Amino acid sequence: MRYTSETTSPDGTTERGFDHDGVPGVLWTPAGDITGLVLGAHGGGQHKRAPRTLAHAHRCTAAGLAVVTLDSPGHGDRPRTPDDDHFTREIRARITAGQDPGPLLAEYNALQASRAVPEWRSVLDALTTLDAVPGVGGNVGFWGMSMGSAIGIPLLAAEPRIRTAVVGLVGATDDLVRAAATITVPVRFLLQWDDQLIPRHAGLALFDAFASHRKSLHANPGGHGDVPEHELDSAVRFLAG
Amino acid sequence: MRYTSETTSPDGTTERGFDHDGVPGVLWTPAGDITGLVLGAHGGGQHKRAPRTLAHAHRCTAAGLAVVTLDSPGHGDRPRTPDDDHFTREIRARITAGQDPGPLLAEYNALQASRAVPEWRSVLDALTTLDAVPGVGGNVGFWGMSMGSAIGIPLLAAEPRIRTAVVGLVGATDDLVRAAATITVPVRFLLQWDDQLIPRHAGLALFDAFASHRKSLHANPGGHGDVPEHELDSAVRFLAG
Repeated sequence: MRYTSETTSPDGTTERGFDHDGVPGVLWTPAGDITGLVLGAHGGGQHKRAPRTLAHAHRCTAAGLAVVTLDSPGHGDRPRTPDDDHFTREIRARITAGQDPGPLLAEYNALQASRAVPEWRSVLDALTTLDAVPGVGGNVGFWGMSMGSAIGIPLLAAEPRIRTAVVGLVGATDDLVRAAATITVPVRFLLQWDDQLIPRHAGLALFDAFASHRKSLHANPGGHGDVPEHELDSAVRFLAG
Repeated sequence: MRYTSETTSPDGTTERGFDHDGVPGVLWTPAGDITGLVLGAHGGGQHKRAPRTLAHAHRCTAAGLAVVTLDSPGHGDRPRTPDDDHFTREIRARITAGQDPGPLLAEYNALQASRAVPEWRSVLDALTTLDAVPGVGGNVGFWGMSMGSAIGIPLLAAEPRIRTAVVGLVGATDDLVRAAATITVPVRFLLQWDDQLIPRHAGLALFDAFASHRKSLHANPGGHGDVPEHELDSAVRFLAG
């Protein structure tokens, strides 16, 4: 992991850009004691410094949590493959035409997970080895909505170092249900009641699949992008433990 | 409203028993400033000083909230009518026989609401008039699960002084859906994912019916009586605003 930039904001939060084996990312650390590390995976079409990613990072650092985020494959500063172009174009076309983008979204999400899960594990290795985030060994959490969850759920299934997760805005597929059924850490699952991309029953079915003894579904009115502020604040409290 | 007892616990919480037009109740007030008043309606088979009612009252007073609770009709120290005996016996018999108690529960709940809603409104009048709970005019909330919600939802529909509510463990009936559709205050709705008394779809349908712009469904694993502690704590934070 090679740091490429470092800035400190007036509130004392340090933001370090990095490159890890060709994957660009950002690590935010709060001014005071670090109480945990959040792996934050952005949604489809977003990137490591998109407004929502930044807002979420600031919520976390204000609660004493460090946050690491990566550009997902084909997103942000990363090269786009013909697959990325194909799926992005076709998914947009279906939404524009009022058709169901669900099957294509699920297919692209599965491709994203197969590429991104090894990257996340390798970044976690590097952060732990380098002791870049001191004292977080016991408290690593995951945050990611939509495509971020489609990456995060297989990541949680593969990675025992992640102790808690907030996921959501994603529906049941065979792959995700299989992965969720092996997950036992505390999970909060966010669902938007009027999600135009994820049918309600598909979100409920995926929540149902988690094996976690402690899991909570939080559903709120509104569409895919309308998760209310109070829910985002509450998610950070959950990750802070 | 006539006070019948008064005790103060070591943490400074004052508990006053009262009788209001023949309805026995309890008013708990915290030691310091009172930030709001919670109307707490107990569940079926419980009463004003049942262990869960007490535990919830203590959570609220610790957060600066006063709590008032009443024995519901046919419960606690109140006389039981032949209707109370009939429904209680038949509901228990159906549960014991492994039959669906849903329609009978709904019928009894509707009877309870018709009796209890005027009592709650009259108690709220008395508390306001007597200035027994100073400074709570702007922040009156409702808490009640199961039969408590079956009373609370029609109460919310009738009573504009209630500004926020936590309800749940109850399913859609025509009456409750009609009442919920007129409710616009912030609502949190608790659902137990494996509730043996309330079918999942019936709980989801009732959540769907609320007209509130701010409403959140919180679902957790476990049966009717298994609402997790963290959810109860979170509900009190919600009521405290």
